[in-house]
Amino acid sequence: MREAVGEINTEELGYGDPLGVPALRGVLADHLGRTRGVVATPGTTVITHGYRHGLGLICHALKARGARTVAVEHPSNPEQAAIAERAGLTAVRVPVDELGLRVSDLTDADAVVLTPAHQHPTGVVLAPSRRAALVTWLRDRHALAVEDDYDAEYRYDRPAVGALQGLDPAHVAYCGTTSKVLAPALRLGWLVAPPWLAAALRTAPDLGSPRVEQLALARFVERGHLDRHLRRMRLSYRRRRDAMVSALARALPGAEIEGIAAGLHVSVTLAAGVDPTALRRAARSRGIALDTLADYDMVSDRPTLILGYSQMAESRITAGITELAATIQGCPQAPS
Amino acid sequence: MREAVGEINTEELGYGDPLGVPALRGVLADHLGRTRGVVATPGTTVITHGYRHGLGLICHALKARGARTVAVEHPSNPEQAAIAERAGLTAVRVPVDELGLRVSDLTDADAVVLTPAHQHPTGVVLAPSRRAALVTWLRDRHALAVEDDYDAEYRYDRPAVGALQGLDPAHVAYCGTTSKVLAPALRLGWLVAPPWLAAALRTAPDLGSPRVEQLALARFVERGHLDRHLRRMRLSYRRRRDAMVSALARALPGAEIEGIAAGLHVSVTLAAGVDPTALRRAARSRGIALDTLADYDMVSDRPTLILGYSQMAESRITAGITELAATIQGCPQAPS
Repeated sequence: MREAVGEINTEELGYGDPLGVPALRGVLADHLGRTRGVVATPGTTVITHGYRHGLGLICHALKARGARTVAVEHPSNPEQAAIAERAGLTAVRVPVDELGLRVSDLTDADAVVLTPAHQHPTGVVLAPSRRAALVTWLRDRHALAVEDDYDAEYRYDRPAVGALQGLDPAHVAYCGTTSKVLAPALRLGWLVAPPWLAAALRTAPDLGSPRVEQLALARFVERGHLDRHLRRMRLSYRRRRDAMVSALARALPGAEIEGIAAGLHVSVTLAAGVDPTALRRAARSRGIALDTLADYDMVSDRPTLILGYSQMAESRITAGITELAATIQGCPQAPS
Repeated sequence: MREAVGEINTEELGYGDPLGVPALRGVLADHLGRTRGVVATPGTTVITHGYRHGLGLICHALKARGARTVAVEHPSNPEQAAIAERAGLTAVRVPVDELGLRVSDLTDADAVVLTPAHQHPTGVVLAPSRRAALVTWLRDRHALAVEDDYDAEYRYDRPAVGALQGLDPAHVAYCGTTSKVLAPALRLGWLVAPPWLAAALRTAPDLGSPRVEQLALARFVERGHLDRHLRRMRLSYRRRRDAMVSALARALPGAEIEGIAAGLHVSVTLAAGVDPTALRRAARSRGIALDTLADYDMVSDRPTLILGYSQMAESRITAGITELAATIQGCPQAPS
C-alpha cells in the first residue's frame, strides 16, 4: 500500500476504467486460472467492493435481462436472498444435503447462487455428480450460476476442488474477495463474468473500487506474495482447526463434526437436544460468540454450532471449547 | 495515506461499523456544519463509495418505505434517473429555470434529487423563494430531498449559499464526495441522513468503504488540510474560469455565459445555431472534449456548450477556446 501511494500518478487518481485497474485484472485472471482452474481474461475480470457488491451487480444485470427468480442454497447467508430481492428478483430456497446443493430441485429458476468448494454454513463440498447435473441444468435453462468461492483457498486435507466456473465459463459468474484472505477493510473483490455480463456491468452506475488498494493488490499478487501468504495462513488455520477438533472430541465426545476439513469455521452437531437460543445467550454471557444453524432458519432437535477459529491462538481455542462444553452442560434441554 | 497505512490496527482491518469509521464521521459532521451549515452528528453521517453509491442506498431505503416516484431535475445527469429506476422507483423530470428547480411542478413525487448550490449542468443557484417553497412542499408531502452538494466548495464571486439541508434536516439527505475536491480514485463520499434513513442504511447489504482512505481523510480534515486545500484550489480554479470566460468573450463575442461564477465548468450558449452533434464530432477531431445540453436531452436552436476547466493550465485554456471558435465557424448551421 505504501508503494502504491507513493507511485500513483495523476491519471490513476481519476475515475479510470469502471471495471477496475487493468494491471490488477490481468494478474488476477492469471492467478485464478492457476490456483482455481478459472477460465478468465482481463476483459472478463471485474473488480468490485467485495462479494455482496458483486452479487448485487449481477442481480441487477439479471433483472435487466428479464430474469425473475434466483435460487439460493438453504441454509445459506440470508443476505444473499435480501440482495436478490432488492434488485427486484424473487429468491427461492433450494435444499443442501451431504452432496451439496440438490440440483434436481432447481426447477425453473433463472439463476442460482452457490458455494461449491465449501458450502456455507454446512461445510459440505458439491459432489462431482452434482456439478455435472448443474452444468446440464445451466445449459438447458440458459441460466447463470453465481459461484461464491469465498474460502476455497483454505482446504486442509487435500488440494481444493477446482472452481465450478472452469467447467462452464459461459454459464458461471465466479466471485472472490480479499475479505477472507487479506482484510475486509480493503473493500476489494472480483468477478469473472461471462462476456454478456461483463459488458452489462460496464454501464452499472455503482462500479469503481479504491485505486490505491487495486494497485497494491496487483503488485502483491504479481510478486507471489499472495501465494506465500496463503501457504502460511493455510498452515496456521489448519493448526487452529486441528486444535478445535481435538478439543471438541475431548470436551464433547458425542458431538459430530460436519463437512470437510476446510475454511475458517467448524460446524458441529451436539449429541443432545439443547435450545439454541438459550445456548447462544449463555455462551455470550461467558464471552463466547457463536452462531447455530437455527440462525440460518434450519430447525433440528440437536443444534449445529458454527464455531469460527480464524482469529484465535490455539491455546485460546482449547480453553474456549472447554468453557463452551461447561456452558452446554448448564443449558436447559430443548422443548421437544 | 502513508500515515494511515502505517498505523491501522488489526481491529480496523476488519469489517468495522458499516456506516463508516467513527472518527471520520465526527470530523466530517463538524466540517459540514462549519462550512456548509449542515446539521450533522456522527450518528447521522454515513460514509459511502461516492455520490452514486449514496443515491442508490437512499433510493433502496425509499422503496422499502413505500415510495414510488422520485423527481429529478431536467436537465441533470441521466445516471440519477437510472439509479432511481434500478431501485424500483419511477423517475419523473421536473424543469429547471433561471431560479433553479421549478418547485411548483413537483406535484406528487415522494422524493426529489437536486443540486441547489450550483445546478448541474445549467449552473444556476436555487433561489431563496424556491428554497422556502421546497421546504413547505417537503413538510406537506412528508417527502425527502436528496441534496447533491457536489461542487459547492467552488463559488468564486461570494461565499457559497448554505446547504438546503440546514433549513430542514428532517426532510433533506445531504450528499458530498471527495471526487471533486480530492480524487475520484479514493471512492469516498458521505451522506448526512435524517435519523430514519441513517437507521435504515445500517442494514443495507452493500455499505462499507475502504478503511485506510477513511482514516487518512479523518486526519486530513481534522488537521485543517482540507480547508487549506480548498482555499488554494478555489483560487486556482477561479483563475482558470476567468481565463476561460475572457477567452470566450474574445473568441465568441455573441456567446452568453450561463449560471453563476462557480464550479468546475462554464456553460456557454452560442450566438448562432450549430448542430451540436456535428460540433461535438468536429471538436473531438481537434482534441477538444465537450458536452452540450443536447447530451442532457435539452433541445434548443442555439447549443449550450459545457466546458470543463479544472484539469487545464490557463495558457492551454486560452489556446483551446481559440481552437474551439475556429471549429464552430467551420461547422454547418443546425437544420431549423
